[in-house]
Amino acid sequence: MKLDINSDMGEGFGRWSVADDADMMQIVSSANIACGYHAGDHDIMARCVAAAREAGVAIGAHPGFRDLIGFGRRMMPVDRTEMCNMLAYQIGALQGIAAVAGHRVSHVSYHAAYGNAALADADLAAAMAAVIAGIDRELIFYSQPDTEVEHAARKAGLRVMTLFLADRAYLPDGNLVPRGRPGAVITDHDEIARRVARFVEDGKVVTADGTAIGMRAKGILVHSDTPGSAELARTVRATLERLGVEVAPSTELAD
Amino acid sequence: MKLDINSDMGEGFGRWSVADDADMMQIVSSANIACGYHAGDHDIMARCVAAAREAGVAIGAHPGFRDLIGFGRRMMPVDRTEMCNMLAYQIGALQGIAAVAGHRVSHVSYHAAYGNAALADADLAAAMAAVIAGIDRELIFYSQPDTEVEHAARKAGLRVMTLFLADRAYLPDGNLVPRGRPGAVITDHDEIARRVARFVEDGKVVTADGTAIGMRAKGILVHSDTPGSAELARTVRATLERLGVEVAPSTELAD
Amino acid sequence: MKLDINSDMGEGFGRWSVADDADMMQIVSSANIACGYHAGDHDIMARCVAAAREAGVAIGAHPGFRDLIGFGRRMMPVDRTEMCNMLAYQIGALQGIAAVAGHRVSHVSYHAAYGNAALADADLAAAMAAVIAGIDRELIFYSQPDTEVEHAARKAGLRVMTLFLADRAYLPDGNLVPRGRPGAVITDHDEIARRVARFVEDGKVVTADGTAIGMRAKGILVHSDTPGSAELARTVRATLERLGVEVAPSTELAD
Amino acid sequence: MKLDINSDMGEGFGRWSVADDADMMQIVSSANIACGYHAGDHDIMARCVAAAREAGVAIGAHPGFRDLIGFGRRMMPVDRTEMCNMLAYQIGALQGIAAVAGHRVSHVSYHAAYGNAALADADLAAAMAAVIAGIDRELIFYSQPDTEVEHAARKAGLRVMTLFLADRAYLPDGNLVPRGRPGAVITDHDEIARRVARFVEDGKVVTADGTAIGMRAKGILVHSDTPGSAELARTVRATLERLGVEVAPSTELAD
Repeated sequence: MKLDINSDMGEGFGRWSVADDADMMQIVSSANIACGYHAGDHDIMARCVAAAREAGVAIGAHPGFRDLIGFGRRMMPVDRTEMCNMLAYQIGALQGIAAVAGHRVSHVSYHAAYGNAALADADLAAAMAAVIAGIDRELIFYSQPDTEVEHAARKAGLRVMTLFLADRAYLPDGNLVPRGRPGAVITDHDEIARRVARFVEDGKVVTADGTAIGMRAKGILVHSDTPGSAELARTVRATLERLGVEVAPSTELAD
Repeated sequence: MKLDINSDMGEGFGRWSVADDADMMQIVSSANIACGYHAGDHDIMARCVAAAREAGVAIGAHPGFRDLIGFGRRMMPVDRTEMCNMLAYQIGALQGIAAVAGHRVSHVSYHAAYGNAALADADLAAAMAAVIAGIDRELIFYSQPDTEVEHAARKAGLRVMTLFLADRAYLPDGNLVPRGRPGAVITDHDEIARRVARFVEDGKVVTADGTAIGMRAKGILVHSDTPGSAELARTVRATLERLGVEVAPSTELAD
Repeated sequence: MKLDINSDMGEGFGRWSVADDADMMQIVSSANIACGYHAGDHDIMARCVAAAREAGVAIGAHPGFRDLIGFGRRMMPVDRTEMCNMLAYQIGALQGIAAVAGHRVSHVSYHAAYGNAALADADLAAAMAAVIAGIDRELIFYSQPDTEVEHAARKAGLRVMTLFLADRAYLPDGNLVPRGRPGAVITDHDEIARRVARFVEDGKVVTADGTAIGMRAKGILVHSDTPGSAELARTVRATLERLGVEVAPSTELAD
Repeated sequence: MKLDINSDMGEGFGRWSVADDADMMQIVSSANIACGYHAGDHDIMARCVAAAREAGVAIGAHPGFRDLIGFGRRMMPVDRTEMCNMLAYQIGALQGIAAVAGHRVSHVSYHAAYGNAALADADLAAAMAAVIAGIDRELIFYSQPDTEVEHAARKAGLRVMTLFLADRAYLPDGNLVPRGRPGAVITDHDEIARRVARFVEDGKVVTADGTAIGMRAKGILVHSDTPGSAELARTVRATLERLGVEVAPSTELAD
């Protein structure tokens, strides 16, 4: 059995940062790299790509709204054409950086409010998936399973890497408990290890109300934007290795 | 005989613009498109690329300093690594936009102070040329002839489109009369037509002190950032056509 | 009888502009100056303030969302605290510029989506009015009559300059016909002159469905962000002068 | 004997930060608050001002170049007029925020490259001092002693708070050892405590070559933009208190 571990990375700007990307790069098998709109800049991107190449980590574009001050977490009233243009711009920018570093962008993962906009509108999700496919049909789309964005990506002919969020609580319908509600984010390492183990052993996750639901996923997304996130990622990786799961990039796993 | 006419385009931002790009697109054979750093944004770029494709105009990246408020005209103390990273980012971003529109970025032309930084430092020029070649060896480099940037591009294996600036006065050494000096910019249409004709007929330009010097160029750069620039471009094109010169994009002309 | 003519000004950025502010400054009696968030920058603000002082024109802050690429026309999900902080920041910035130029900020006029947010939320409107009063109780608040923002300003103890929009069509309930609907913006000079005359003569405006409604206003807002807007402002001013109305700044008129 | 302890604060942006401002605010007697150009934004400024008011800390504007990505550390080719306009804008913006919070901006301290530009040009320093005096003659100017900026401030009629940098090595001529050279920044707490004690006891500092020079200063500037800076500030404060020096804001100390 193989699983991918991925994390959002390069989410600083200029001299600011939110996490220790160098540390995290030693743990993950693929990295979702901010492209300068909600965070990141040309230098941070270049450093992330070089570190990923050195560590044998696959890289993906992590496009967001053009909103540095809001970190891409605010919903913006942007029409479909602009949503698509900002997607093409950001993927292309990372491809340019990657080409020079001798690496290759192999996936796309939407950031925060930008991704929520696509989740809420099937037509928009389809238009955005077509943009990705128009740039490179080999790009893998990272997505929670059973969402509009997954369906749109598959219809556009893209392979998909389905994601389990090990440190977020789920509702019985498979959606996440919204941030801000008690228990939405899980920080206890033992609890996270237990969730990862259950997911590996029988493909299930226990939701907030105690029921177990199926979790169809080939990768685990670990948050990186809080202190201690690298430790948490280490717990996930150690759990996988203890259970004999091989950690592998999405290029080997997506379907 | 064939010559390219090109112009800097897409140099607005949001609802601001500096020129009538739609009009100019009917006159040029290649367009240098701002990439969001000194001007331009994802929507303006997408509109420019679509218009260029429709008009059969070749497109190139026109990268500049990340300086919207200064329009990329201020020299910035940026080290070589960052100069290269911002180049890769901007070329890639336009490639992303172009891929979706079914067009292809075929050249690169530096903007203002960003280009001046390269002109002044042969090692930097070489590093930047290597970035361009690293992204796509087919990219054509736009340059005034006999400059460090031309030499660097050729050494990197890139083809070059050499440029004559029909509306700028030259010094006897082949450099431009600096902006701000009297007569630096030529606005009289008859004078521009005469200069274009002389260049076509015997490959020479009369400098500010009256001497004629050789002008090795395969394309004519027309400024676009002033009112009336499209009219001036029309004068250039009409002069070429009157003399039997075919206007053709750089993809047919660069060497 | 006295009336104020005002217009939004300084809405360029760096080398970009949307209107001929120097021309418009000769026509208006008060100027609403962009403060760097939706448009404007420190240099443009300083030039506007100097020109206003020279022309004897009163100046006001024209705060908007921090959204250059969207020109402040996109609604943003900003909470009350941030709405208030961005208001204080922008008014203060213009006061700083004005102090150096020997002028004084005498009013505040909200821009586009930022103002719409206040119109839609009475509690927010009250909090924002308290910010204005907290900075300077002498500041005059510019507002369409009979709105939440007018009520909030009066409750906060501010004087109000009520505005008639001569070039916008009204609905029978006193609201504007939304932009984008046919006839929302009136561009015919004769029609505008007739509307101004009717407003002066019996305080009424004919709405889109032909009924005449009362228009309680002491000033006329003229749009500045379209070509020809200065000509339109000239028509308004000429009409007022023909009818014997004195054009005077809000400092003489607000109540 | 009384001395001021001050530090640069509020130098984050959106969700990014560089230091624990809340902790530092408990140690300093005055705070230099970033104004949104090199760092800071309306919300961060408002939080800093509120915390300063709560803690009885005096506040000052800490203006810099408009360069978030470079953190204001890059020299920019900005002419005198623009230098002055950006100064007025930033001071005013903080005054607006302070007015609403019931606090008052009582000083100005230049940031990094923006300050270096003034240090290098006496005419510019004079023009900038005139801007400060034009906004509020009561504003205190923070400065290293015996510099062009100190002279310019005094000529403009401003009071000055002279600063000793306890954690930076000095050259025999009284200038700082430039950042980047070995030993430029002192991080050893015992060493810093000894330097503060020597300065308090006989007004001298031992320079990099071992000679002691006079240090005419009424305040100590403590860096805040590195991990552990609050601890370092605590060392400075504890040393002062051990020696019986009262820590007091510049409003009581400047001359």
